[in-house]
Amino acid sequence: MSVPAQVCEHGIEHVELLPAINDDDGGIIVEMKEAMDSEVFVTLLRASVSEWRRQGKKGVWIKLPIGLASLVEPTVKEGFRYHHAEPKYLMLVYWIPETTCTIPAKASNRAVIGAIVLNDKRELLVVQEKSGKFQGMGVWKIPTGVVDEGENVFEAATREVKEETGIDTEFLEVLAVRQSHKTLFEMSDVLFICMMRPLSLDIQKQELEIEAAQWMPFQDYAAQTFVQKHQLFKYITDLCLAKLHGDYRGFSPLPITSTFNNSTSYLYLNSRDLNYSEQFLNSF
Amino acid sequence: MSVPAQVCEHGIEHVELLPAINDDDGGIIVEMKEAMDSEVFVTLLRASVSEWRRQGKKGVWIKLPIGLASLVEPTVKEGFRYHHAEPKYLMLVYWIPETTCTIPAKASNRAVIGAIVLNDKRELLVVQEKSGKFQGMGVWKIPTGVVDEGENVFEAATREVKEETGIDTEFLEVLAVRQSHKTLFEMSDVLFICMMRPLSLDIQKQELEIEAAQWMPFQDYAAQTFVQKHQLFKYITDLCLAKLHGDYRGFSPLPITSTFNNSTSYLYLNSRDLNYSEQFLNSF
Repeated sequence: MSVPAQVCEHGIEHVELLPAINDDDGGIIVEMKEAMDSEVFVTLLRASVSEWRRQGKKGVWIKLPIGLASLVEPTVKEGFRYHHAEPKYLMLVYWIPETTCTIPAKASNRAVIGAIVLNDKRELLVVQEKSGKFQGMGVWKIPTGVVDEGENVFEAATREVKEETGIDTEFLEVLAVRQSHKTLFEMSDVLFICMMRPLSLDIQKQELEIEAAQWMPFQDYAAQTFVQKHQLFKYITDLCLAKLHGDYRGFSPLPITSTFNNSTSYLYLNSRDLNYSEQFLNSF
Repeated sequence: MSVPAQVCEHGIEHVELLPAINDDDGGIIVEMKEAMDSEVFVTLLRASVSEWRRQGKKGVWIKLPIGLASLVEPTVKEGFRYHHAEPKYLMLVYWIPETTCTIPAKASNRAVIGAIVLNDKRELLVVQEKSGKFQGMGVWKIPTGVVDEGENVFEAATREVKEETGIDTEFLEVLAVRQSHKTLFEMSDVLFICMMRPLSLDIQKQELEIEAAQWMPFQDYAAQTFVQKHQLFKYITDLCLAKLHGDYRGFSPLPITSTFNNSTSYLYLNSRDLNYSEQFLNSF
């Protein structure tokens, strides 16, 4: 929703401002949609920032669709810096006040899943990848993949296993979470190691990214030299064993609704221990 | 490390290419550092892409520092799209082959922490915020904050509690993880709810973002109307109770070293259950 404004400032009447809406933190969001001459844009931008400064506004966001790439340079020259980019737009930002900038940080993490799928014969679903770090190493690994934008972890795990191997699964738990840094450029990865129950057994591997896929006896997987040497792989083995033979409790997803906007998100927690605690408390 | 190249193609000798290095996935990374005339840049870019196509290269990355914003528009006009942006540079990308694009997804998540700090008197460390969704609502909430780029979750939790309240803490466990979408523009948040042990008690609140901070009797925190109505807050109460009165097991951090580059990352898992399983297995 854009709110065009006209102001009277410095004796110049009816200076047009850029179309803008307020954000939740005392700032301004400008979403440019139509092509505009650079010089006209700079004139409007200067008048707008001047007015917003007078109004005591804080952060100014400017969203430029990729089709308006010609406005990137003039915006930068007015002192804006990059905040984040999507394939089809660039978001720039400027902090007006003299005080410390509290512009929220951009996304710097990828959510990634790794899926442990064990069948009734204690065979693990494993793949070899066509590209990436493991290419040509002959290492059998669990299916992994990036969580799509807006996708839930449990959905991503089910989708990736299906895409890579054709196997249908039911999501059970997050067994562990790994945070690692500088995995690609400045990015950090948050890896959710997921426990899945197979609902089918017939493997149909994806041609694009997967060299080979199979159900592998768990002991054969664990015996691979690389698995012994690579700590993350070793812990995945330990987690499998703990689920096969022990009583390991991971985090399972519970839907929660926000009071603010009624949206649903998912909280992953140790629901068995939580339920136990509640029974314990109710017994008083 | 840049590898300038000269090629002979289409009968034109010594066509200069853009400085480029190979990536791990059969692609090319160009990092522009010096200012360059737009027309010269476009000529070099076309010759380079042509040569890389001949070589069978896949993705082409071009990193433009903010000082070279004038090259954004010409790069876009050559068919590149935005991949991601840091405050000081923009990364653009182009997929050469006819096959499906497998350019890795950009970061779309923020890692965020919420810190449960309970003292020996069963008082919870709570704050009221000066801006954001909770501004002016009078809600007492646990300290929260964004994990910095390259920062570990357990470090961020300790840092945020110290910054907002002046309290020193020891990180104990991740009690739960919440994934929520579209929290700011296209971003998703991955919230780690952390259990912390206070190492000091004297509160010194931060002026910039924090309206008020106090140690609050846990029952008073839980009795707030907003806490009763807001599901996430309610679960935080349940998690506190489970830790105070039950035997709730969260995920604790273990350092792991990568076989590939010797870097350290952290795996958060239920180490008590894992140790128990190992003892169980060793007893055979």
